Amino acid sequence: MKQMHSIDYLQQLVAHRLKQEAGKIGQTQPVNLYQPIEYTLNMGGKRLRPVMLLMACDLFGGNVDQALNAAIAVEVFHNFTLLHDDIMDHADIRRNQPAVHKKYNENVAILSGDAMSIMAYQFLIRTETPVIQKITQLFSKTAMEVCEGQQYDMDFENQTNVSIDDYLEMIRLKTAVLIAGSFKMGAQLATAPDADADRIYRFGINLGLAFQLQDDLLDVFADQEKFGKKAGGDILANKKTFLLLKALEMADAEQKAQLEHWINKKDFNPQEKIVAVKKIYTKLNLQEISRQKSDDYYQTALNELQAVEVERNRKEPLILLGKTIMKREH
Amino acid sequence: MKQMHSIDYLQQLVAHRLKQEAGKIGQTQPVNLYQPIEYTLNMGGKRLRPVMLLMACDLFGGNVDQALNAAIAVEVFHNFTLLHDDIMDHADIRRNQPAVHKKYNENVAILSGDAMSIMAYQFLIRTETPVIQKITQLFSKTAMEVCEGQQYDMDFENQTNVSIDDYLEMIRLKTAVLIAGSFKMGAQLATAPDADADRIYRFGINLGLAFQLQDDLLDVFADQEKFGKKAGGDILANKKTFLLLKALEMADAEQKAQLEHWINKKDFNPQEKIVAVKKIYTKLNLQEISRQKSDDYYQTALNELQAVEVERNRKEPLILLGKTIMKREH
Repeated sequence: MKQMHSIDYLQQLVAHRLKQEAGKIGQTQPVNLYQPIEYTLNMGGKRLRPVMLLMACDLFGGNVDQALNAAIAVEVFHNFTLLHDDIMDHADIRRNQPAVHKKYNENVAILSGDAMSIMAYQFLIRTETPVIQKITQLFSKTAMEVCEGQQYDMDFENQTNVSIDDYLEMIRLKTAVLIAGSFKMGAQLATAPDADADRIYRFGINLGLAFQLQDDLLDVFADQEKFGKKAGGDILANKKTFLLLKALEMADAEQKAQLEHWINKKDFNPQEKIVAVKKIYTKLNLQEISRQKSDDYYQTALNELQAVEVERNRKEPLILLGKTIMKREH
Repeated sequence: MKQMHSIDYLQQLVAHRLKQEAGKIGQTQPVNLYQPIEYTLNMGGKRLRPVMLLMACDLFGGNVDQALNAAIAVEVFHNFTLLHDDIMDHADIRRNQPAVHKKYNENVAILSGDAMSIMAYQFLIRTETPVIQKITQLFSKTAMEVCEGQQYDMDFENQTNVSIDDYLEMIRLKTAVLIAGSFKMGAQLATAPDADADRIYRFGINLGLAFQLQDDLLDVFADQEKFGKKAGGDILANKKTFLLLKALEMADAEQKAQLEHWINKKDFNPQEKIVAVKKIYTKLNLQEISRQKSDDYYQTALNELQAVEVERNRKEPLILLGKTIMKREH
């Protein structure tokens, strides 16, 4: 089988192509449609999903250059979802810059998002492969699921009976399927056997769930400097994360009353609310419980990867990527 | 070559399939994502574009049943654009019913529109054809152009130097390319020669332009009962249609001053404004000039159709469709 590429190389491949495409897009008329797309694509980010697609392609000995259009498609789609989510969530800042609906306006954000979603398909369909219909079907199914995840996320805001299973299903749809779909598209482009493509998909699902649970945890417990964003945002927004749902499940009568007091309180000192809720989480040992849950998914992910029928050493970059995402040293 | 189907038959084929799909969609979770899609697809409409796709397929002896998924894709896409346009244009009523952003809310309208755009691709990609990549590329190019048309339309609202050519290019993108693209996709699915596929595309472009110019005309001059919607809306909104742009071009100093007076006036009696502007249009003979312009495009469309290299009698349904759209008896 072909020699493999380093993660660095694949990241540069994606970054270079994206920059090139963003430049072209920024030169296209009408400017009010295309410049916000250039702006969005140039905002940066880790470009994880396209790199994941290329890594899976590489794992099975596929041609990463041939897979690059599909990788760009995934990144353009992901950025489209962030753009529209920011309108819906009234989030004004994205990667330390004004969100598109703030920098321009809401109509521009709606329409340039629409165009990005179509553009994602334009990149995808350029891929020269006999499995074009298969990857386009998987891409579309994944894209629909991401929309479903966003809808559940919004629904949960006004829903009082969200279960932990509901939450896990929501983050599966909103976060994990696009990671899993990226891996599987890469595998399909490399004409991996279906069983292996499904294993790499489940690797992605479990890695995605592990990552999201850890991200929720960091939102509460992270050292703010390391984490990079302001801690406690989920607590202030009463976001029904695993932590809050599990806390409500485990809390005794007094703790439950306290949690509900803070959830329902309209006027509060933000720092006071964060400290109070965090204290309950700590008493309930939720940092450990949540880390354990995340770790379970991470281990399941690694088991799925282990079962993939290719030489062990080809899996090393994916194991390394998993570690990086999970911020593990071991 | 195969016997052809009547327009009625094709319309029923589309209506039946759409109803069936809308029903399934309405049963899918999460309801806040899928019910607005069912609502939108059940709003009705003439289903012109999918029927056009099937008619072009039929013209070249293709299999209309095999083309049905692509036809549904075009209709779902068209309805998606209406849904998002209604948010952007603050249009609260669509086909005598509340628009999705009014019946539900704006977030629901954004996200269910996004899902419809992906769903359009899901229908398209289900098509079993060796030209799947070709039709998906054409569909995507067309979809991007529709977005460009909508952006130009919004741009023109705040732009004082819109030329008649700018306007024609805008309606080509916003309206004509989807009609033309539907025809061409049908031709491609029937594996028509490229030259004929291009002719049927130009038939669609010119028919679309003729139709839009006539629609603008009817907005001002139509017998309200026949037209079905309230006349004068474009005048009240200062919409830069062919009529207004041509009037500004042809007007003498006094007429121009009058037009600008009405355009800039913030407080006015709607009926008075309509009557005054209409009077200038009439003096400038714009009803006739505009009809002539529309007719030129209509004739060009018919010439393109005539040049298509299939038996004359196979073109009859398309000629009939053209007449119906243009509300001609001759």
